[in-house]
Amino acid sequence: MEQKIEGKLEMTDIRNYVEQNKDRFLEELFTLIRIPSISSEQEHKPDMVRCAERWKELLLSAGADRAEVMPTEGNPVVYGEKIIDPARPTVLVYGHYDVMPVEPLELWRTTPFEPVVKDGHIWARGADDDKGQSFMHAKAFEYMVRTRSLPCNVKFMLEGEEEIGSGSLYGFCEQHKELLKADVILVSDTSMIAPDVPSITSGLRGLCYWEVEVTGANHDLHSGIFGGAVANPINVLCKMIADLHDADGHITIPGFYDDVLVLSDDERALMAQAPFDEQAYMKELGVKALKGEKGFSTKERTGIRPCLDVCGIWGGHTGEGSKTVLPSKAYAKISTRLVANQDFEKISELFKNYFEAAAPDYVTVKVTPCHGGAAYVAPLELKAYKAAEKAMSDTFGRRPIPTRSGGSIPIVAGFEKILGLKSILMGFGLASDDIHAPNENYPLQQFFKGIETIPLFYKYFCE
Amino acid sequence: MEQKIEGKLEMTDIRNYVEQNKDRFLEELFTLIRIPSISSEQEHKPDMVRCAERWKELLLSAGADRAEVMPTEGNPVVYGEKIIDPARPTVLVYGHYDVMPVEPLELWRTTPFEPVVKDGHIWARGADDDKGQSFMHAKAFEYMVRTRSLPCNVKFMLEGEEEIGSGSLYGFCEQHKELLKADVILVSDTSMIAPDVPSITSGLRGLCYWEVEVTGANHDLHSGIFGGAVANPINVLCKMIADLHDADGHITIPGFYDDVLVLSDDERALMAQAPFDEQAYMKELGVKALKGEKGFSTKERTGIRPCLDVCGIWGGHTGEGSKTVLPSKAYAKISTRLVANQDFEKISELFKNYFEAAAPDYVTVKVTPCHGGAAYVAPLELKAYKAAEKAMSDTFGRRPIPTRSGGSIPIVAGFEKILGLKSILMGFGLASDDIHAPNENYPLQQFFKGIETIPLFYKYFCE
Repeated sequence: MEQKIEGKLEMTDIRNYVEQNKDRFLEELFTLIRIPSISSEQEHKPDMVRCAERWKELLLSAGADRAEVMPTEGNPVVYGEKIIDPARPTVLVYGHYDVMPVEPLELWRTTPFEPVVKDGHIWARGADDDKGQSFMHAKAFEYMVRTRSLPCNVKFMLEGEEEIGSGSLYGFCEQHKELLKADVILVSDTSMIAPDVPSITSGLRGLCYWEVEVTGANHDLHSGIFGGAVANPINVLCKMIADLHDADGHITIPGFYDDVLVLSDDERALMAQAPFDEQAYMKELGVKALKGEKGFSTKERTGIRPCLDVCGIWGGHTGEGSKTVLPSKAYAKISTRLVANQDFEKISELFKNYFEAAAPDYVTVKVTPCHGGAAYVAPLELKAYKAAEKAMSDTFGRRPIPTRSGGSIPIVAGFEKILGLKSILMGFGLASDDIHAPNENYPLQQFFKGIETIPLFYKYFCE
Repeated sequence: MEQKIEGKLEMTDIRNYVEQNKDRFLEELFTLIRIPSISSEQEHKPDMVRCAERWKELLLSAGADRAEVMPTEGNPVVYGEKIIDPARPTVLVYGHYDVMPVEPLELWRTTPFEPVVKDGHIWARGADDDKGQSFMHAKAFEYMVRTRSLPCNVKFMLEGEEEIGSGSLYGFCEQHKELLKADVILVSDTSMIAPDVPSITSGLRGLCYWEVEVTGANHDLHSGIFGGAVANPINVLCKMIADLHDADGHITIPGFYDDVLVLSDDERALMAQAPFDEQAYMKELGVKALKGEKGFSTKERTGIRPCLDVCGIWGGHTGEGSKTVLPSKAYAKISTRLVANQDFEKISELFKNYFEAAAPDYVTVKVTPCHGGAAYVAPLELKAYKAAEKAMSDTFGRRPIPTRSGGSIPIVAGFEKILGLKSILMGFGLASDDIHAPNENYPLQQFFKGIETIPLFYKYFCE
């Protein structure tokens, strides 16, 4: 089983290989993209299996010793591996083959599942997220196998439910702990700051989500006959939501910030190096001013601080016309984003207890916890983090900036909990790739540079 | 044209007449009820005309000299009259032949448009509101005509748009001022306190209604990437709505109360005579506490004080599941009920200007005024009010209590403005009649007592 490592991992060699094979790489990627593997739509169930099977073929042709489409409670997982020496380190590559829905179709300039190369970009659903990004790993792996330069063992795990919450992957990991044993997880499913400003996502926020229901009278009332005398659950809900923040934008739930780690001045200074044009940001969003927690910058507000948002609200008459009604019920969907060290289950309880207890006696309030996930942080001292940093420094000519994403990838915290593994989020996407939106695209340059960068990660990780 | 008045209006005679004709009265009423004249549903347009035509026949058979179905911009108005002597006073009877929708159908114990008499009640849509109540006037009129006891001229005006805001009736009144000349308007479209506690609605609240739109970013955002840094329009709207009341339940819009008339202690004492069981009221509504403006009783809060309610709110993800989104927009429908002397157009402007100006700089707020109507008060010194008071005292054996209804009938203020006429709201409905709801009903006793009471109103009004 043990194999000799004969080749060396040099950037120029890799670049030449990519240059010579780029058309084939794209053609292979397009065979994945053309399968409309939309995980949230039941009608695409057969496409999920087709896409997984196609991945299996591509892993085998890239040099895997073994590849399988493995069942889960939901969509299958594609597993592949090449074990050169059990004594050497193992990198577990994680990605997902499912994609987001494509509506609204009329806003697309091309056909979502018919990839087109134009103006230096691949245009298609999944071009970046995550078919384009995960496929870079298959081709970097192919290079290392063909040139006998692969310095360690590699495992691939591609799931089909990332866009719908990775529901089955937690169980899959629990069930296959042995199979998935590795030293680190490598993921390309995030973005970097700009083509000339590389960055590595060193943190993700966690998430808690609740639905709240406020009930006043036991049925809808005439707003004239009862208005002024009986509590209106919409007005009450608005007041309760308003009271969740103070004038400085702090969340008022007692104990909410107890476990939040305060970053050192040095860490904040490093984060602040990421270029950020607040005027351009506001212009892009079409707002005249920003709003957030006092004492923190915009980047800090999304990166290292938790927040609370109402994701949806409804109650009373929401159709056309001016129906007068004093409704019986009002509802909201409320979510928080959490930062490292906040326990999402503790926060979930904290909010439920607080919000229900805060109900005035003229209404009843019910809070239903929906889902949640822990935040995640990759310490910058990790060998794997440093390997990613060096690899990107080589190919982009500039040391990547560690960034904290405001978003959540709950499975990354799940990997840490279940498999005991840290993940390195070395993503090559750009903010302009319009993932989850019409006209998703992925710049060819990012795609090819990603393939060049990945073998260097292996090199530095195994040094 | 002049006709002799030969008969006398005596309660026992009227009672005997009702007793002898009650089955016919019900049969006639049922011919009106069986026509599903739902004004808010386009498919019932032909039923509106059929119902108007049926009313015309019933007015003619009751003794009108003339009756017509007259066009308006919307549903027709039924006009009828009997002029006994132009020199004598004229009573204009107002009612409406349109009804509310019947959904949810599954909650009805009978078929809405197939009237059933059971347990001493008529069960059907329109049994009370307003077919049952307005038809009492036709039969009281019939009695007076047939017994040659009608002491004055009578005009009837029945509209087909009351349940949708009387939109066409304002123009109709403007256009037919001469035709509609009268001394007072008599209306039965309200309720009394209890079968043994007669009351007359001496005031109605006015109404102002707006739709508000709060816009944050120019498109929906990822609640992770942007949450905490960009204003959430739902949170902002909630705060703005919460700020419309202070801790004492007062409305905070500057100038809002400027024109509100403060009632004298005597007037408040008279109002307080109306029996009111707060515990029963709360039990009926299923609430543990009431909420309203500090310093006023429940009855005062709905009768003599304005109020502000959110009738509807919506924004973000309101469907199933826990989609995380930081929405671009949030909406609410907000209404106030106004009291006498508050100018609804002034209040409409006041709110729009205040709410738009209150928008923080991180959102934009747009307020669209929808509709409104003035409040109405009938002074208790009016001869017509006193006539109604005496009439009900005779038939119910107890002096009716003047009540201020929290509801609005904007056209009543419109009559005052356009025709210069006060309206007497002598209603015989009961709170348990479930108007606008499934299982609408009208107690036979109220129906027959109403027919007995109305001629006595004419008697005292013409004395």
